[in-house]
Amino acid sequence: MIIQKTSNSRIGDFDPNNIGFGAAFIDHMIICEYENGKWGDVKLMPYGPLPFTPAMMGVNYGQACFEGMKAYKDKDGEVYLFRPEKNFERINKSAKRLAMPEITEEMFIDGLKALVDVDRAWIPYGEGKSLYLRPLIFATEEALKARISNKYMFAIVATPVQSYYTEPVSVKISDYYSRAASGGVGNAKAAGNYAAAFYPTKLANEEGYEQIIWTDDATHEYFEESGTMNVFVRINDTIYTPPTSDKILDGVTRDSFIQLAKKRGIDIKVEPIEVAKVVEAHKNGELKEVWGVGTAVVTTAFKALGYKDEKLVLPILSDEESFAISLKKNLVDIQTNQSEDPFGWRVKVEKHILETV
Amino acid sequence: MIIQKTSNSRIGDFDPNNIGFGAAFIDHMIICEYENGKWGDVKLMPYGPLPFTPAMMGVNYGQACFEGMKAYKDKDGEVYLFRPEKNFERINKSAKRLAMPEITEEMFIDGLKALVDVDRAWIPYGEGKSLYLRPLIFATEEALKARISNKYMFAIVATPVQSYYTEPVSVKISDYYSRAASGGVGNAKAAGNYAAAFYPTKLANEEGYEQIIWTDDATHEYFEESGTMNVFVRINDTIYTPPTSDKILDGVTRDSFIQLAKKRGIDIKVEPIEVAKVVEAHKNGELKEVWGVGTAVVTTAFKALGYKDEKLVLPILSDEESFAISLKKNLVDIQTNQSEDPFGWRVKVEKHILETV
Ligand SMILES: Cc1ncc(COP(=O)(O)O)c(C=O)c1O
Ligand SMILES: Cc1ncc(COP(=O)(O)O)c(C=O)c1O
Repeated sequence: MIIQKTSNSRIGDFDPNNIGFGAAFIDHMIICEYENGKWGDVKLMPYGPLPFTPAMMGVNYGQACFEGMKAYKDKDGEVYLFRPEKNFERINKSAKRLAMPEITEEMFIDGLKALVDVDRAWIPYGEGKSLYLRPLIFATEEALKARISNKYMFAIVATPVQSYYTEPVSVKISDYYSRAASGGVGNAKAAGNYAAAFYPTKLANEEGYEQIIWTDDATHEYFEESGTMNVFVRINDTIYTPPTSDKILDGVTRDSFIQLAKKRGIDIKVEPIEVAKVVEAHKNGELKEVWGVGTAVVTTAFKALGYKDEKLVLPILSDEESFAISLKKNLVDIQTNQSEDPFGWRVKVEKHILETV
Repeated sequence: MIIQKTSNSRIGDFDPNNIGFGAAFIDHMIICEYENGKWGDVKLMPYGPLPFTPAMMGVNYGQACFEGMKAYKDKDGEVYLFRPEKNFERINKSAKRLAMPEITEEMFIDGLKALVDVDRAWIPYGEGKSLYLRPLIFATEEALKARISNKYMFAIVATPVQSYYTEPVSVKISDYYSRAASGGVGNAKAAGNYAAAFYPTKLANEEGYEQIIWTDDATHEYFEESGTMNVFVRINDTIYTPPTSDKILDGVTRDSFIQLAKKRGIDIKVEPIEVAKVVEAHKNGELKEVWGVGTAVVTTAFKALGYKDEKLVLPILSDEESFAISLKKNLVDIQTNQSEDPFGWRVKVEKHILETV
């Protein structure tokens, strides 16, 4: 690894008690360039602009994918990543689907560790606080033909964050717009999937909904995801979540929730969720909870589901009664080293890693 | 318009008799930045890199759309754009669907004219030769939250080109992968649509097909587009092309072909094309031609359609017999000022435009 530390740390301007989401960047970033069929050296360098022209294929053809993950600080100042190997596997799955070169585990894991270690002072400690890490790969060749690029950049940038959702929100079950095509790229963290969701989400916001429960594009009869999260439904005491497919992202939080629920002996079924079944359960008073899960906020609980002209209002459960909240607590406790780690999910970031990479 | 001409023209290195597609950029580019809710001044400046970080929202979330159009030089050295108002309307349709700010006609049309005029020496003259123009809009704000960006760049970059397809090619009718979701962004020139097509196209290439005829993602029973072109099918003496929808791009070449065919009195039907109907017509010897149309190559004729385990070989027609070839000739003659322009499609680029914008 090529190390080029900043001589102008900006950390003096950073207030860990006043954090937005994704606005302030830590002092350094990781970059690595792909050319002539291979990746070059990984470089740790000051965060900042690099020279790209508007002909860069990444912005012209959307050949770009990313990951979202976090580093957590415990009360002793130790720092942990959470299941980073899952994100490593997924970025390569995304890269493959977008015809981009895969990266090595060393680039990804050592890059993360080096960056987190060198900027560990930027990681805030406290409830809901963490360092959000963004590994990404994008096409950098300058060319105006819609074809696979020959040049790429792998980068990791990061920003201190604080969970921003608090209260349960209302969401809209989509009956027109959709996020993914079958045979498409919904199961890749492809850049283009996100922009495609902005306009429908804006329309839903204007109707008073925080996010959209995406349904299958062919019939709109089945739940897929919610916003940029995987979705869970609780009917009586059984939890349901749709199986992953080429339209549904294989979320790390989703997988962790499934494992945690199983460990607690909660009945959890990974099977397609029909909108009609949810509506029916609501009518019968059996629909207890619906929530989304993802790295950014862990859990967002829903208080109402908009469906066509109806509004399905969900019951208000106490934190103890709620599976969403108690599973979230189980997960956060593991992530932040406040409990045992029976699954071996935490990965400690050792100090002075730069001396060894 | 702010004008900043290069003092280092690269045109001496440019060989108009040896042109690739999209590799050499003309001396200048247009840029315009959006911030605080409005577009700033349009600037004509030397083509080259600008400072962007890997946190740029355009590459992270694919909030980016583009246009593809051409400037043609006639034998007297006069230069013409082709129906630029169609591209202007379409880029704003794309921008809207991706929750990006729309641009003004002045930014788009005057930007194009100024760029084409200042670099008119870069426009090659001769069969299949032109200047390919790439207007694009992409999100430039640095932030790691998946939300609508607050900053954008509009740019126009350009490269001299020469049509690269010549012989009819074999194409594969997709029975698994798809390009667009219903309720998705297939009818926008969204950056992400292109990357999503690369991997399926690579697999098709490995099976010996040049491109993919995209079918609807729900059933794969209907034609949508071919590669990055709109698709036409001729059965006996009737031409069919699918109606535009939220999954099919409203191509300028498609529209021009429809109008030209009508003018010539050819029977043309804009209606859904069932794969089964094409297969049946082939069996009966009634399938005469299938071809794709788009700005880049105008027409690509197909010699065979791969469908599941079958290969539907198409008859070889003379240029006179072929609707694809004769309509292409009608269109190219208009574009390059070799014929009358009954539709008023050509837009002449006046000289010394910079003095008036
Ligand atoms: C579309 C989508 N679904 C689900 C998720 C949740 O995945 P994870 O739990 O790995 O963060 C994400 C990312 O946060 C996402 O972008
Ligand atoms: C997906 C797609 N379909 C069709 C076309 C053809 O459109 P046009 O004739 O406007 O170039 C294009 C662009 O070339 C395209 O990208």
